[in-house]
Amino acid sequence: MKYRLDELAKSVAGRLAGDPECVIEGVGTLQHAGAGQIAFLSSGRYRQYLANTAASAVILTEADLAEYSGNAIVVGDPYLAYARIAALVAGEPARRVGVHRSAVVEGGCRVAESASIGANSFIGSGATIGANVYIGPGCIIESGAEIGDDSVLVARVTVCRDVVVGHRAMIHPGVVLGADGFGLANDHGVWVKVPQLGSVRIGNDVEIGANTTIDRGAIEDTIVEDGVKLDNLIQIGHNVRIGEHTAIAAAAMLAGSCTIGKRCTIAGGVGIGGHISIADGTTITAMSMVTSPIREAGVYSSGTPLDSNRNWHRNAVRFKQLDEISRRLKEIEKRFDNVKNKE
Amino acid sequence: MKYRLDELAKSVAGRLAGDPECVIEGVGTLQHAGAGQIAFLSSGRYRQYLANTAASAVILTEADLAEYSGNAIVVGDPYLAYARIAALVAGEPARRVGVHRSAVVEGGCRVAESASIGANSFIGSGATIGANVYIGPGCIIESGAEIGDDSVLVARVTVCRDVVVGHRAMIHPGVVLGADGFGLANDHGVWVKVPQLGSVRIGNDVEIGANTTIDRGAIEDTIVEDGVKLDNLIQIGHNVRIGEHTAIAAAAMLAGSCTIGKRCTIAGGVGIGGHISIADGTTITAMSMVTSPIREAGVYSSGTPLDSNRNWHRNAVRFKQLDEISRRLKEIEKRFDNVKNKE
Amino acid sequence: MKYRLDELAKSVAGRLAGDPECVIEGVGTLQHAGAGQIAFLSSGRYRQYLANTAASAVILTEADLAEYSGNAIVVGDPYLAYARIAALVAGEPARRVGVHRSAVVEGGCRVAESASIGANSFIGSGATIGANVYIGPGCIIESGAEIGDDSVLVARVTVCRDVVVGHRAMIHPGVVLGADGFGLANDHGVWVKVPQLGSVRIGNDVEIGANTTIDRGAIEDTIVEDGVKLDNLIQIGHNVRIGEHTAIAAAAMLAGSCTIGKRCTIAGGVGIGGHISIADGTTITAMSMVTSPIREAGVYSSGTPLDSNRNWHRNAVRFKQLDEISRRLKEIEKRFDNVKNKE
Repeated sequence: MKYRLDELAKSVAGRLAGDPECVIEGVGTLQHAGAGQIAFLSSGRYRQYLANTAASAVILTEADLAEYSGNAIVVGDPYLAYARIAALVAGEPARRVGVHRSAVVEGGCRVAESASIGANSFIGSGATIGANVYIGPGCIIESGAEIGDDSVLVARVTVCRDVVVGHRAMIHPGVVLGADGFGLANDHGVWVKVPQLGSVRIGNDVEIGANTTIDRGAIEDTIVEDGVKLDNLIQIGHNVRIGEHTAIAAAAMLAGSCTIGKRCTIAGGVGIGGHISIADGTTITAMSMVTSPIREAGVYSSGTPLDSNRNWHRNAVRFKQLDEISRRLKEIEKRFDNVKNKE
Repeated sequence: MKYRLDELAKSVAGRLAGDPECVIEGVGTLQHAGAGQIAFLSSGRYRQYLANTAASAVILTEADLAEYSGNAIVVGDPYLAYARIAALVAGEPARRVGVHRSAVVEGGCRVAESASIGANSFIGSGATIGANVYIGPGCIIESGAEIGDDSVLVARVTVCRDVVVGHRAMIHPGVVLGADGFGLANDHGVWVKVPQLGSVRIGNDVEIGANTTIDRGAIEDTIVEDGVKLDNLIQIGHNVRIGEHTAIAAAAMLAGSCTIGKRCTIAGGVGIGGHISIADGTTITAMSMVTSPIREAGVYSSGTPLDSNRNWHRNAVRFKQLDEISRRLKEIEKRFDNVKNKE
Repeated sequence: MKYRLDELAKSVAGRLAGDPECVIEGVGTLQHAGAGQIAFLSSGRYRQYLANTAASAVILTEADLAEYSGNAIVVGDPYLAYARIAALVAGEPARRVGVHRSAVVEGGCRVAESASIGANSFIGSGATIGANVYIGPGCIIESGAEIGDDSVLVARVTVCRDVVVGHRAMIHPGVVLGADGFGLANDHGVWVKVPQLGSVRIGNDVEIGANTTIDRGAIEDTIVEDGVKLDNLIQIGHNVRIGEHTAIAAAAMLAGSCTIGKRCTIAGGVGIGGHISIADGTTITAMSMVTSPIREAGVYSSGTPLDSNRNWHRNAVRFKQLDEISRRLKEIEKRFDNVKNKE
């Protein structure tokens, strides 16, 4: 899509600097953008490319404008403004409305006329597909499931029976919503399956990354609140609740019945134990292991730093002696005190 | 399904307390169950909800019955009894027998008449589908594979060529059984693929969670024994063997040729190195890294505890000095001993 | 396929020992191979099985030949020679050329006549499928994507719009190439999606394991160079670049914009932070966490060793006191020095 720079500036309530009639029809990085492309500067890491960028315009802060003489949109948060301008410039992909001839739609479904049901997809009996929904090729929507208006299931998404997805969801390929939770009772060493009779409820404006899995609840539902953003290959166990506007990066694992607060940021590879609560606004850094509740917002971490394998090995062995080291230190302190006292 | 309370009590060899004619047609939690629903109490965490539960009946132990005057089924293990009663009450989903018109079944397959082959599924030449098997929509069963009687492949499961799945399997969406193992030889810096010519053999009564992958063996087979339960997003490398009735939680990684004993419990995110053996009955806690064999049953762990990022950082830096700290401590002990000896 | 032993020896430039006319038609392990099978010995672990192997021939080194009197192919690197011989003996699977009647191929595609398009697969408008390509059942190739000559997409692979895959790729089931990267801007606590407008470019001779996900770039492309080998369930974030002939084991996580050098070896479960560069030839051991650049080739590690849960707990608690322990040790050293100085 083509936009004039003044139109784009207005769309993000930014201040225009330079030529209002400059035409933008694409985006680029400061380093590699060319004519007709708009770039942004939001991190010091890339400031070195500002002076010589070939971009037709740059989104930046007032402070960075000082070092730049080309066309610009000046805003408080260039990355946020870029997100909005990029969405305008990229435009919406054209999507055919209607049911593809190769799709299988069972009886008793409600499929909105404005919805698009892709090739080789399957919609089970009693499912509901809302207005303007895009169901890409190879998706499976089992019986009784509901997909809210304006949601996009890119391709090959599986939504199991009775799962409810809200409006404006964006769900990437390989996602599985509502597979059975991992519920097992033990009968003299033999596992007995505990039927998973709850469902999954996904709020509005939720994004779910490729191959992420969200299990259905055992009795009650697994709940993902409005505005939650999930990256790829995340595991969400049964009866988890994720508070609104929380973002979780790739390969995180949330065990059953844990409760994540609102507006948390959970980095990649983090593991959270079963039945644990995390306070609103908590940040957890990559690959941390959470085995106790977090009652106060803050930034939390675990793990050890990378080292050469040789040094790591030397130190890792000592980890198994840490308690002993601590006791020996205490002992030597005591002996020293005794000596001093005798003097 | 509707059951009288005395029928349910009998089904789990439990003692009935209260009204034998009480009708149960669903399950609920102590906290939220209503009329017609049965709840259970198996953990102290939920005892607070017992007195005021609106459930029509509760499954509990003799000890907990003392604090409860409503209808009850009294058993030694309420969670196990609940698992069995919930299965009764939930009933079996109705499944159409036969091959869906959109399914592709190649020549030379043996598909039992009582099997259900779902929409847009694919059964390759020479595959065998046993009695009462349910193959959900979008599944792919490659040539020569075998699915044992009464197994359920929920949807979009991929079973590669010649893989054998036993009876009563429950396999969730996105599972891949029998992709090539990660076998590479190196020719002067360039990787050469080692053909993966073994297969995967899954025993009876195995459950496999969403998006879990089990690779085929390099020469011999990867083996999952009877009664094994696997959660979501687990990686099982080539030529692994998992002993019967072992349960593995989400996102665990088992590298090639490792051997897991019987009745082990492996928590989420655990990594087990290649060619490592784990003794029967071993428990490994979440996110542990196993790089040496475990020869004796027990509970094993690794990792560091969560802390505020500020404190963590301070301590993590010291991890790289652990060996030095240990040596300095030894040195100071020696110096002290020397001083004392001189006195 | 059947081969004479002298043919096989010649194919790997190996020295024949024993009967040149010995016919080989399969492979086996030293321990379990039988008549007509060839085995190999490349690790001391298996030398115990050499003397009594029932294999018709063995691939081994000159040094190991001393302990063996049967038919053999003598080479410098038996595992590499095995990889090549196994490929010959296994042969290529027969693949039907042409488009399966159940496949959906949209208008404007270029599909080579020698390509095989499997059951229930989908090829979007404008996609290009090269010569001899095998697209297995249930694959989705979105519009504009390109699959290079001789590539194999085993089954149920998703290649999103405009993604480019090179020649001779081997892509396993469940792989997702080109889903949106995890790009989010924050507007007063609410996440705003950053459009992901780059693509993914996969070089030649790349293998990608089951359920691995490679996200498309935000502005520029995510790049996987020639000869890279990826195991299962790996996450590759947007704008990552992986250098040629690097191998990455299962469940590794590469956050956005990280740059991995050539010929690196990254073990299972490793996490690499965003915007981090890793030098060519680096090895990172399993489950390590990389939060700073690695500027020099070497072997790197992090994590703590496994221990009994009881001991681990005792020591892990002390990890939170490490900085304090270090300070107290310094203090006692100072006190000791003071005392000595006074003497």
